Amino acid sequence: MHNLKIDAERLWGTIMETGQIGGTEKGGVRRLTLTDLDRQVRDWFWNACEDAGCSVTIDEMGNMFARRPGRDNSLPPIMVGSHLDTQPSGGKFDGVLGVLSGLELVRTLNAAGYETTAPIEVANWTNEEGSRFSPAMVASGVFAGVFDRDYAYGLQDREGLTFGAELRRIGFQGEAKCGGRPLSAYFELHIEQGPILEAEDKRIGVVTHAQGTRWYNVKVTGFESHAGTTPMPMRRDALVGAALLIAELDAIALRHAPAAMSTVGVIDAQPGSINVIAGEVSLTVDLRHPEDAVLDAMDAAFRSAAERIGKERRLDIAIENFWKNPPTAFDGACVDIVRQAAEAAGYAHRDIISGAGHDAVYIARIAPTAMIFVPCEKGISHNETENIGIADAEAGANVLMRAVLEYDRRLAERESRS
Amino acid sequence: MHNLKIDAERLWGTIMETGQIGGTEKGGVRRLTLTDLDRQVRDWFWNACEDAGCSVTIDEMGNMFARRPGRDNSLPPIMVGSHLDTQPSGGKFDGVLGVLSGLELVRTLNAAGYETTAPIEVANWTNEEGSRFSPAMVASGVFAGVFDRDYAYGLQDREGLTFGAELRRIGFQGEAKCGGRPLSAYFELHIEQGPILEAEDKRIGVVTHAQGTRWYNVKVTGFESHAGTTPMPMRRDALVGAALLIAELDAIALRHAPAAMSTVGVIDAQPGSINVIAGEVSLTVDLRHPEDAVLDAMDAAFRSAAERIGKERRLDIAIENFWKNPPTAFDGACVDIVRQAAEAAGYAHRDIISGAGHDAVYIARIAPTAMIFVPCEKGISHNETENIGIADAEAGANVLMRAVLEYDRRLAERESRS
Repeated sequence: MHNLKIDAERLWGTIMETGQIGGTEKGGVRRLTLTDLDRQVRDWFWNACEDAGCSVTIDEMGNMFARRPGRDNSLPPIMVGSHLDTQPSGGKFDGVLGVLSGLELVRTLNAAGYETTAPIEVANWTNEEGSRFSPAMVASGVFAGVFDRDYAYGLQDREGLTFGAELRRIGFQGEAKCGGRPLSAYFELHIEQGPILEAEDKRIGVVTHAQGTRWYNVKVTGFESHAGTTPMPMRRDALVGAALLIAELDAIALRHAPAAMSTVGVIDAQPGSINVIAGEVSLTVDLRHPEDAVLDAMDAAFRSAAERIGKERRLDIAIENFWKNPPTAFDGACVDIVRQAAEAAGYAHRDIISGAGHDAVYIARIAPTAMIFVPCEKGISHNETENIGIADAEAGANVLMRAVLEYDRRLAERESRS
Repeated sequence: MHNLKIDAERLWGTIMETGQIGGTEKGGVRRLTLTDLDRQVRDWFWNACEDAGCSVTIDEMGNMFARRPGRDNSLPPIMVGSHLDTQPSGGKFDGVLGVLSGLELVRTLNAAGYETTAPIEVANWTNEEGSRFSPAMVASGVFAGVFDRDYAYGLQDREGLTFGAELRRIGFQGEAKCGGRPLSAYFELHIEQGPILEAEDKRIGVVTHAQGTRWYNVKVTGFESHAGTTPMPMRRDALVGAALLIAELDAIALRHAPAAMSTVGVIDAQPGSINVIAGEVSLTVDLRHPEDAVLDAMDAAFRSAAERIGKERRLDIAIENFWKNPPTAFDGACVDIVRQAAEAAGYAHRDIISGAGHDAVYIARIAPTAMIFVPCEKGISHNETENIGIADAEAGANVLMRAVLEYDRRLAERESRS
């Protein structure tokens, strides 16, 4: 088993081929979920999997599962996968790498005549991106019991078209129930979408956790007044209050380094005139950390900073935590297997935390799950310039294959012992 | 002379009467320059001044001068005045108080049979507000030689109508040359438009200086990246850089307390998404101080803070100083006369700096000039809720009259000495 290697050129060829479906002039991909282009790439994937000897099942959420049977098909499958939909100005690799590395795994096993103990399934999850139908990862979410199927069917895009109608329109509303079936394990290969691996010259990120995220709306209310006639000590400048809070949020994340993150991405100051002191400022806050206890501490520090600034500056600062996504610790055994696979294959690696959401985060709720990251150029993703090297794709797919085969070996061992 | 007092009820009556012309439901006034409503209030003023025995001259900029002759009409006039135009959602007092206190001065002198040595002129300056035709104070500016007449004629409002055409349309393009004639002195009574006098329970502000103002556009350029995958130390967060700069600008003004002011009124962060680190932030900066040397120091501190923050945070911070208005020190003798007048009349007073622009700032370039402030409720102005008490109007008009008569007495003294 340890001499098996995926065919990097073949894998790269499939990535470049699917990159033509919705490909943009700048080398990116625009392939929104449940559009005709999504149907095209789904048809491509379906054919490729059947050509590789798999049976393909579509479930009621449009999730696609290409199954390569094992020796003992009563065992739940070891699943790999990701998604083939993209952002409006997306790249060729986000999601695609994980799905096509699954196809490459099947092709490699076929070529080697390798029979696994458990069946292997390669998944293409519907609507991971969430940029046409929000929320993101809704179909893996239904699979994991996080969302209700009919809730997902009712989601609308900006034109008022529903998820359900569009799913039927492209012919991908399958009959299989979404979820409610066991998986032996789930492994997802994905580009990092961040700069760490490239900066540290590591080929593989062993993803131990996915961060928890808390999203807030903040409103700072002061008093609108004349910039030329209101002495500094008499001001209730909402924008100065917001600025102090933004600086403090930055410091809070740095105090919980290296895993903590805090971001203020949206700010609006009213009335928005050069010579008028801002009376009201709205801003968003995004806090992330892989542990809930630390998120609680960051939340408390944020609130107490807001209270102090509000008191010092005579401002009213209202904080609304409108969304929480709890942290995910991936399965210890699966994570170890990924780390050992990277080590055994001789790739420089490091443990890493996923900051972005992934289908694996939902699947982790119902099955032993781990993720594998490979570097992307300058950490850029969700962008037409998103890029990786063929050696990155190769390394990721090899580690994915090794992890799957090692997990399968352990299943066989367990079976033989029982 | 020291027993003369203006008639507060009569003055208040004229303010309330003109407040009907363009009066709004909320008790404010919308009387934009060179509109039909402006013509109405000009006609009202013209009639009132002629009824008070004045001759009224209109100059080529539409400035109105109501002249009450003195004993020696070869002397340049002592001028008082302000403006009758308002903001789109303005109040009854901004500008109006200064013009109608001039009318009230004439009426009081008439009633007392008081003959001044120099002639007195009451001015209504065209387009002080600048909210229809920018820049503000353009007609006192032409009078003082700051702007060219034809430049002013060519100014356009949002509908593309020109200042010159609108001036002719309402019949107020006079034949007298604008400016080019001496004034013995100029005194302008105005509401403070800030909160200082009310907060300190002073009835009179003796305006010693008008602040210099510098306006800047700042662009902070970082790097747009994912809020969940970019570790804090690797970020180039333009909004954190902007926040640190805003906090520093606040501190710079506080270090030059009490006269210094700094305001960031406009901010825009791109791309403006909750989970994307801002790559580019634009903001405006408004710095004010009555001394150019201190403005230079504030400017230098601002630039060095930007350089430090830019270096520490790996941001590019570009600063453009697109407008400068130099500070004005009002005439020492005129300021002393105002202070003594307030003292003699028994009004609580304090020296104060004008933060807003006024016609007096331009007239100060060509004649000995001073200003008198009275408090306005909560410091609110440029707002329909702008308000003052009748006692404030009375005090301001009495100090204005006392200052004019004292200045006139000194002119007489000088004349008798020569």
